[in-house]
Amino acid sequence: MARVVVNVALKPEILDPQGRAVQGAFGRLGLTGVTDVRQGKQFVLTVDGEVTPAKLEEIKHIAETLLSNPVIEDFTVEVQA
Amino acid sequence: MARVVVNVALKPEILDPQGRAVQGAFGRLGLTGVTDVRQGKQFVLTVDGEVTPAKLEEIKHIAETLLSNPVIEDFTVEVQA
Repeated sequence: MARVVVNVALKPEILDPQGRAVQGAFGRLGLTGVTDVRQGKQFVLTVDGEVTPAKLEEIKHIAETLLSNPVIEDFTVEVQA
Repeated sequence: MARVVVNVALKPEILDPQGRAVQGAFGRLGLTGVTDVRQGKQFVLTVDGEVTPAKLEEIKHIAETLLSNPVIEDFTVEVQA
């Protein structure tokens, strides 16, 4: 049993109005010093058995095609024991 | 300049229909062995200067009140150099 975490975030050059709204709310709530906020998605996969290199490649392929939009988003895939 | 990552996820006992839909799509796309998928949100904060313990407490407070719904969601806060 392994956990694979896929994080999907907007590319740095893409405007993030959701993150901008959160940053504005921080200021109104008195939290200063936060110069940027980016909001992304996180998918936590529970995988049966071992995550072999081939399985990881499959997951990366699906992260690129199903979980993210490669035109505007970047993703990372991290295997946790 | 520090990065603070806040991950917000549904509590384990709360049904996650989005995650369930993603899991179903995995199966149709031929990725087998994924027994569970949970979808959450990730906020990446860029903080000016050092993240002092007091600042971290402020961020945790805001993660609990603004970024998550403590009735149905858990959150983690992680400081990255």
